[in-house]
Amino acid sequence: MKVAVIGAGAWGTALSVLLATKGVPVYLWARRREFAEELRAYRENRTYLPGVALPALVWPTSEAEEALEGADLALVALPSRAVREILSAFPKAPLYVSATKGLYLSSGSGGSSRVLKRMSQVIQEATGVDQVLALSGPNHAEEVARFLPTASVVAGEERAARWVQAVLSSPTFRVYTSQDLPGVELGGALKNVLALAAGMVDGLRLGDNAKAALLTRGLREMIRFGTALGGREATFYGLAGLGDLLATGYSLHSRNRGAGERLVRGASLKELMEGRQVVEGLFTVQALVEWARAGGVELPIFEAVYRVAYEGEEPLRALSQLMAREPKAE
Amino acid sequence: MKVAVIGAGAWGTALSVLLATKGVPVYLWARRREFAEELRAYRENRTYLPGVALPALVWPTSEAEEALEGADLALVALPSRAVREILSAFPKAPLYVSATKGLYLSSGSGGSSRVLKRMSQVIQEATGVDQVLALSGPNHAEEVARFLPTASVVAGEERAARWVQAVLSSPTFRVYTSQDLPGVELGGALKNVLALAAGMVDGLRLGDNAKAALLTRGLREMIRFGTALGGREATFYGLAGLGDLLATGYSLHSRNRGAGERLVRGASLKELMEGRQVVEGLFTVQALVEWARAGGVELPIFEAVYRVAYEGEEPLRALSQLMAREPKAE
Repeated sequence: MKVAVIGAGAWGTALSVLLATKGVPVYLWARRREFAEELRAYRENRTYLPGVALPALVWPTSEAEEALEGADLALVALPSRAVREILSAFPKAPLYVSATKGLYLSSGSGGSSRVLKRMSQVIQEATGVDQVLALSGPNHAEEVARFLPTASVVAGEERAARWVQAVLSSPTFRVYTSQDLPGVELGGALKNVLALAAGMVDGLRLGDNAKAALLTRGLREMIRFGTALGGREATFYGLAGLGDLLATGYSLHSRNRGAGERLVRGASLKELMEGRQVVEGLFTVQALVEWARAGGVELPIFEAVYRVAYEGEEPLRALSQLMAREPKAE
Repeated sequence: MKVAVIGAGAWGTALSVLLATKGVPVYLWARRREFAEELRAYRENRTYLPGVALPALVWPTSEAEEALEGADLALVALPSRAVREILSAFPKAPLYVSATKGLYLSSGSGGSSRVLKRMSQVIQEATGVDQVLALSGPNHAEEVARFLPTASVVAGEERAARWVQAVLSSPTFRVYTSQDLPGVELGGALKNVLALAAGMVDGLRLGDNAKAALLTRGLREMIRFGTALGGREATFYGLAGLGDLLATGYSLHSRNRGAGERLVRGASLKELMEGRQVVEGLFTVQALVEWARAGGVELPIFEAVYRVAYEGEEPLRALSQLMAREPKAE
């Protein structure tokens, strides 16, 4: 057994630590050669996951062939924007699991309308592999790598999902399976936008009551949108939807929640986009709202996040408008 | 128009401030004469809601006749344990709204089995009034009294609910209506138990991943139980269920969450029971688990809270058992 982990950010590194601790050899692919060398030299990812030792079974490399050759499984933990380009140029693995939470809006061509794609679809197109699964849930890398108790979901075709479940499960990392691939992926992508909204509420000090109301209504909006794109409602109320929303919306670890907070305190979109770690929610909300506007779909909370981030709307005004919507039956 | 608020804790006081600010005269009833005098003297509830001035339209009193006479509406904001006894001895109002979040387990008599009652049912029996509504949602008193944006739900017969909605609504306090009285009341009561569990996770420093997983699964348990008692599933996913769970499970204000934290750090049940403010979740879980055990209903998370609080089970053991349940499909 050999696993390739593609992407040496916090999450790719944490998954490598998890697997190696179970005795599985892991090739951890980093884009930059110097970074792979640094990981090998320090046996620690000082940039993205400081303080966690890399077990001997983790082999950092920047060589795609070395990482993929003979791998039974490839876990993709890249920024969503990089997935297509990187995987297109790679040797193929027999099975891919997307551990990336994002959406991709295809550019459309020849007058065709733009299509919103989930990461498993992007991976499938880039690799030509039939079966791509997804791993998602309330999973802060920092906690998984420190063996704090965590639950996660692997979604896709049943037999493959059960196999991946067995590969990844450990006493501190409980993996559930789901056949709802769209729902699990959409939950992971959409909650990042709601986490931005939660961060805005935090930054404006609007309080716990307002934040709870916003996230409750935001989850409903996520479901309206996610079920229209093929996810099952129950999935959004599970670990990969609500669970991940809680872990992100209420955590000090979360980049997305933190970015919302910084945004209302005056950080520019450019600063947030150029940070060391990718704020996936900023890309997701852009893809989402452009798509929703083109199709006339109403998503008030997602829209508000977009207007604040991309159109310079005053945050307190955007959030007040949400609160001021005519009260009706619950 | 005159409103009687029965109970001068934090929530009763906040509701009084809210109404008086809208120009509605409020009689705020406190059990102890000296406490009512103190409220009148300081124009502030220094014990339960310090730092918030009582508007002139709030009249604190310990005289039930003075509070209830000519009142169009009585808001009940008493500890759940005190509702039956206090209201039985009171003059009647034409309409009651329960703002108390708890459950009551009747003692049963003559071999009859014990019955779990919601607060609106207890109020109805104690007063003989036909129609009792309930107000519930993510509503920290401290934030409502400081006019931070808040959403809440009033549940019960439609016309009465719409009238109470109009009485309570303000630019910062958005009131929704619901016809699901059992669901709204059960959500408010059951989330206090899950907040105790959340506090235990916090106290043991198990991390954001574990807390998110526990609350996600806890909500499902709440629904299994709440729908069996007549609530609608959608209600538990709304403001009065999930919303209130978030506001309580993640807030530093919450007495219930804080009690869970103190419990795993060594506080005794007795200390927590004798605190200045009632930890409703401790009473609710007792009623609930005694009832569930008698009926053979399985509620693993609620059971774990009960065993830690009432049977001295080691908290880390109780929570680990929850995590270790066989993973299956999500």
